[in-house]
Amino acid sequence: MSKLTLGIIGAGRIGRLHVDNLRLVPEIRVKSVSDVAIDHLQSWAEEKQIDVLTTDYKDLLNDPEIDAVFICSPTTTHANLIKEAAAAGKHIFCEKPVSFSVEETEEALAEVEKAGVKIQIGFNRRFDPNFRKVRSLVQDGTIGNPHILKITSRDPEPPNVDYVKSSGGLFMDMTIHDFDMARYLMGSEVVEVSAHGTVLVDQAIGEAGDIDTAIITLKFENGALGVIDNSRQAVYGYDQRVEIFGDNGTAQADNNRATNVEVSTAENVTKDKPLYFFLERYTQAYIDEVTEFAKACLENTEITCTGFDGLQAERIAKAAKQSLETGKPVQLARTSQRVVN
Amino acid sequence: MSKLTLGIIGAGRIGRLHVDNLRLVPEIRVKSVSDVAIDHLQSWAEEKQIDVLTTDYKDLLNDPEIDAVFICSPTTTHANLIKEAAAAGKHIFCEKPVSFSVEETEEALAEVEKAGVKIQIGFNRRFDPNFRKVRSLVQDGTIGNPHILKITSRDPEPPNVDYVKSSGGLFMDMTIHDFDMARYLMGSEVVEVSAHGTVLVDQAIGEAGDIDTAIITLKFENGALGVIDNSRQAVYGYDQRVEIFGDNGTAQADNNRATNVEVSTAENVTKDKPLYFFLERYTQAYIDEVTEFAKACLENTEITCTGFDGLQAERIAKAAKQSLETGKPVQLARTSQRVVN
Amino acid sequence: MSKLTLGIIGAGRIGRLHVDNLRLVPEIRVKSVSDVAIDHLQSWAEEKQIDVLTTDYKDLLNDPEIDAVFICSPTTTHANLIKEAAAAGKHIFCEKPVSFSVEETEEALAEVEKAGVKIQIGFNRRFDPNFRKVRSLVQDGTIGNPHILKITSRDPEPPNVDYVKSSGGLFMDMTIHDFDMARYLMGSEVVEVSAHGTVLVDQAIGEAGDIDTAIITLKFENGALGVIDNSRQAVYGYDQRVEIFGDNGTAQADNNRATNVEVSTAENVTKDKPLYFFLERYTQAYIDEVTEFAKACLENTEITCTGFDGLQAERIAKAAKQSLETGKPVQLARTSQRVVN
Amino acid sequence: MSKLTLGIIGAGRIGRLHVDNLRLVPEIRVKSVSDVAIDHLQSWAEEKQIDVLTTDYKDLLNDPEIDAVFICSPTTTHANLIKEAAAAGKHIFCEKPVSFSVEETEEALAEVEKAGVKIQIGFNRRFDPNFRKVRSLVQDGTIGNPHILKITSRDPEPPNVDYVKSSGGLFMDMTIHDFDMARYLMGSEVVEVSAHGTVLVDQAIGEAGDIDTAIITLKFENGALGVIDNSRQAVYGYDQRVEIFGDNGTAQADNNRATNVEVSTAENVTKDKPLYFFLERYTQAYIDEVTEFAKACLENTEITCTGFDGLQAERIAKAAKQSLETGKPVQLARTSQRVVN
Repeated sequence: MSKLTLGIIGAGRIGRLHVDNLRLVPEIRVKSVSDVAIDHLQSWAEEKQIDVLTTDYKDLLNDPEIDAVFICSPTTTHANLIKEAAAAGKHIFCEKPVSFSVEETEEALAEVEKAGVKIQIGFNRRFDPNFRKVRSLVQDGTIGNPHILKITSRDPEPPNVDYVKSSGGLFMDMTIHDFDMARYLMGSEVVEVSAHGTVLVDQAIGEAGDIDTAIITLKFENGALGVIDNSRQAVYGYDQRVEIFGDNGTAQADNNRATNVEVSTAENVTKDKPLYFFLERYTQAYIDEVTEFAKACLENTEITCTGFDGLQAERIAKAAKQSLETGKPVQLARTSQRVVN
Repeated sequence: MSKLTLGIIGAGRIGRLHVDNLRLVPEIRVKSVSDVAIDHLQSWAEEKQIDVLTTDYKDLLNDPEIDAVFICSPTTTHANLIKEAAAAGKHIFCEKPVSFSVEETEEALAEVEKAGVKIQIGFNRRFDPNFRKVRSLVQDGTIGNPHILKITSRDPEPPNVDYVKSSGGLFMDMTIHDFDMARYLMGSEVVEVSAHGTVLVDQAIGEAGDIDTAIITLKFENGALGVIDNSRQAVYGYDQRVEIFGDNGTAQADNNRATNVEVSTAENVTKDKPLYFFLERYTQAYIDEVTEFAKACLENTEITCTGFDGLQAERIAKAAKQSLETGKPVQLARTSQRVVN
Repeated sequence: MSKLTLGIIGAGRIGRLHVDNLRLVPEIRVKSVSDVAIDHLQSWAEEKQIDVLTTDYKDLLNDPEIDAVFICSPTTTHANLIKEAAAAGKHIFCEKPVSFSVEETEEALAEVEKAGVKIQIGFNRRFDPNFRKVRSLVQDGTIGNPHILKITSRDPEPPNVDYVKSSGGLFMDMTIHDFDMARYLMGSEVVEVSAHGTVLVDQAIGEAGDIDTAIITLKFENGALGVIDNSRQAVYGYDQRVEIFGDNGTAQADNNRATNVEVSTAENVTKDKPLYFFLERYTQAYIDEVTEFAKACLENTEITCTGFDGLQAERIAKAAKQSLETGKPVQLARTSQRVVN
Repeated sequence: MSKLTLGIIGAGRIGRLHVDNLRLVPEIRVKSVSDVAIDHLQSWAEEKQIDVLTTDYKDLLNDPEIDAVFICSPTTTHANLIKEAAAAGKHIFCEKPVSFSVEETEEALAEVEKAGVKIQIGFNRRFDPNFRKVRSLVQDGTIGNPHILKITSRDPEPPNVDYVKSSGGLFMDMTIHDFDMARYLMGSEVVEVSAHGTVLVDQAIGEAGDIDTAIITLKFENGALGVIDNSRQAVYGYDQRVEIFGDNGTAQADNNRATNVEVSTAENVTKDKPLYFFLERYTQAYIDEVTEFAKACLENTEITCTGFDGLQAERIAKAAKQSLETGKPVQLARTSQRVVN
């Protein structure tokens, strides 16, 4: 079996998570990791059998043995790293968002296209079995032509304000997953966005110029409507539900829970809360996304979640922010590129 | 519209419940009520527009205007009242059990047959929409040939010990409903009973010679097996579930709850407890059983729950008691009569 | 027991439904019914024990024995009938919407106030046990301060186009119930509406100048956001769900089903579809609303669903229509009156 | 990190499953595999990085580097292999049942005790998160003193008749898992068994002297009752549910499904069927049992599922068979050993 040799750029929480998951995939070998600070990573790297631990990501790009890189560094570094990796002929797995600037993202993706390497964006939710099933029910016609999409997406607790300040804002940091999910489930592009947002969870988030509660209405190219509701704090856990309603029926995905045990006592009847956060809820999806990336690189097949998908999600996030600021719906330019199915 | 004129014998809890429900049925007029003590019933009878309130049930039997009687007096009086009512040419609705003696019941039913009047036994659960649907799924072949029947039947709180002493015991008082449900759902007679019981809820029940917790295994004429589990105290409410498993699938009826609201908080995710007891759970079933009785009398159609059904449930209860005492399975005699469908 | 004597104006579907339900309430006597055409109603009126059947509603208003009237005639007649009934000193139960004109409604309600009679608007859903429980969970603080309201409201099949033409449009005819539910659950006034709508179910509805699919975003005076999604056709039945999410948790009401039976076969695992339409889903709510109206009239207590509630729902419907036409959010004037709790 | 070096005896379906799972546990190295026929296993062993592939299990027992063996060969070989492995000082993981003879099992376990090695029996269901939670709810007192235990355990399809003939019969092959689960959940020994069984699925099973449908009633040392229902064929999938009912409430574990998506169409409302069979349902439990075994060996901690647990399950299976044959309840001898918690 031929293996895919990888380098990881950025060993923060998500970078280390990917290393753990990549080690479960027999087709993959994680050879190298770079980070701006590596002293605290020595024993970790040893345990994970990483051969090369370096402060310079160029060591990875210059290593001819490395087939692909995972870009897990801060968002502001993504676009340049994509360009350099593409130039070095490496396949790319890049965390979301690609950048905070649609133009930067476009430039970076142009380099990827020129280089002919593959790029996958880290929209892990596309690999969740519940959402995959909902999408398949749309695609196979079970629910007919889609009319209404609903996504509920609420975090269990707000990030700290420092994170909020550098996050690009709720739409770019959090809702961007939902914008991608909307396109993924609907199989059609978003053509108009109307956003409403407010600060109800944490005043400090408002003082940092962001919102923590939002409802965003979408219009799709196929004529359907959609709505996303977001909150930075659902005290009962990570609330991740979707529904697509069409002329033949409706498909709803509920939250996952640790067990399906129901307990009845004199006080009440209870079941488990939703799984706490993305690490618990999307455990398998994180494994599946890197497995599919490896497969696409090794077998030269289509990427499920492309650079164009990353770009479109950013465009919608940008439009949502503009709608929030102007109080008006914002049109998105039609694009000749299509949703990858 | 021709109306059915009724007399009620016994104005205890169940008798008064029937009066309330009968008043919702346009085809019915409740003319008379008898009870051994009537002083405390005067204002009640007036409010319910009862014309005749008497201490002598014979006043009802002798009233030519009365078409049918409801026997809601203590069990020990049922058999004689049935005989007298039959002799008087009245249709009969009799609460369960018909009597504590299979022979007495047989004698009483023989009089009913001779008189050619109708008799319905108060197995109200046959009229519950959930159980009706399960039965229909058996009858229409959806689940195929039945292999296993499961009934869970647990009361929310034990009766007081005085009641227990005069109740005929758990099997005759409480499980008798489940024995009837078993025949009703399975559409086949019980041919063997094995009972296991114990005292876990209230030692006073044990001292009164009864049990409060039981598991009863049934064999049916069609070869299927069944199991009933009983408790006198489910602290979370009235637990009434059934399942029939067959070679094409399984059908399960769950408990009913006051609302379907689900509440998620930081502590837990809760839904409503099961409805508290039989008055709440079987509200509509109690209305439907008397409506069907009226219809059967007025239109001379088949009774859903016959005297034979009452007799068979008693026979099974008797066998269960014997099995509990002997520690061995007890066979039931085959009968040429059939389950009414 | 003192009884409330009623006259019914308009004996169409909803008028006759009310007669059936009113007959279940012991405190009520339905004496008279008026309709523009009564020939076909003779046997119905006899069966329902209606004393007076007339083509002239003034016969009801002039009858000193009549305490209250039910206005069940076409919407365009409501405002004048309210004024006349108020002038005649009758309490009023009026179907929704009060009128198609906020000004007309305001005028009619002013007459009601002057006359000092009671008026209740037929927002039957306020009496549904599921929604009542959700509201109580908001009011008792279980879910904390509300942040997001979600209402899904979809009919099982579209009305015919003739009805659509005279209905006042989706927002005034159908969503008006949801606008009322939004205020009822949130306990706070709507201050801004943004509506998106389209024609996806039936082109004839579009040709009649209406829409059949909509998403409406609401802002409340308490700072919360809300969203309603509507469709004129959910092929699986009447889809009526609500959720209120707050800083202490979330409360969700699901659809009601005829039974809770679950069937597992080799093909799939199924449960009952949602109850078909409003007559099935809101059976008990229709009974409860007239019972509460009778109680309020007889005991001079507060009406649960007032004329002001009817007026506010119309104002929101009007604003939604304007938002749909202009493509912009529409502000609602603050009002000194308060949501009745 | 010190690793546990393993040898696998028997590379049939379950042996190869364990190899796959063991490779996911970083603390484990699978060095050797023995099987009576190895020609077809060469490429598999290479892919799985097995160093030694042999037809002689003694090669494993004689290898000083090997710390523990997995006994995955046919049941009739287990007892001798346990004795030999114990004599060789190897820790032992043995598939269920230990043997078809209680005496043989006792002898084998005596050798294990003498040798002071650890033994774990492959009751994988003890590691299922649903059942673990139910057990914890019993142990922490949430449901109070247990009164009634219910286990539903049905396979999706019957084994072929050749397997049936060598399986030891339904109770020893299939119900043995449920007997273990009963002890595990109840935390108390079984003192009496009453078994009822029949052939409803496949006449060939009956001709082979076995049954395919059963209901088994249990009495526990703590006074509680229990019931297990079994079928060799549930056409909708692997049906694995448990409930424990106590004086403070009840805890129910439902089946697992591939997704939680609910689909509503004009025909019906569906959700996923139960996961197909044990490989799907207990995927994680199989991983967790070997992980815990490795941990217990490496850190010298208690085994969750001991040889005594294997022995007790066999004793109950034996008693169930005897009850089926005699038609009477069978008592189990009290034992001074206790349920391991």
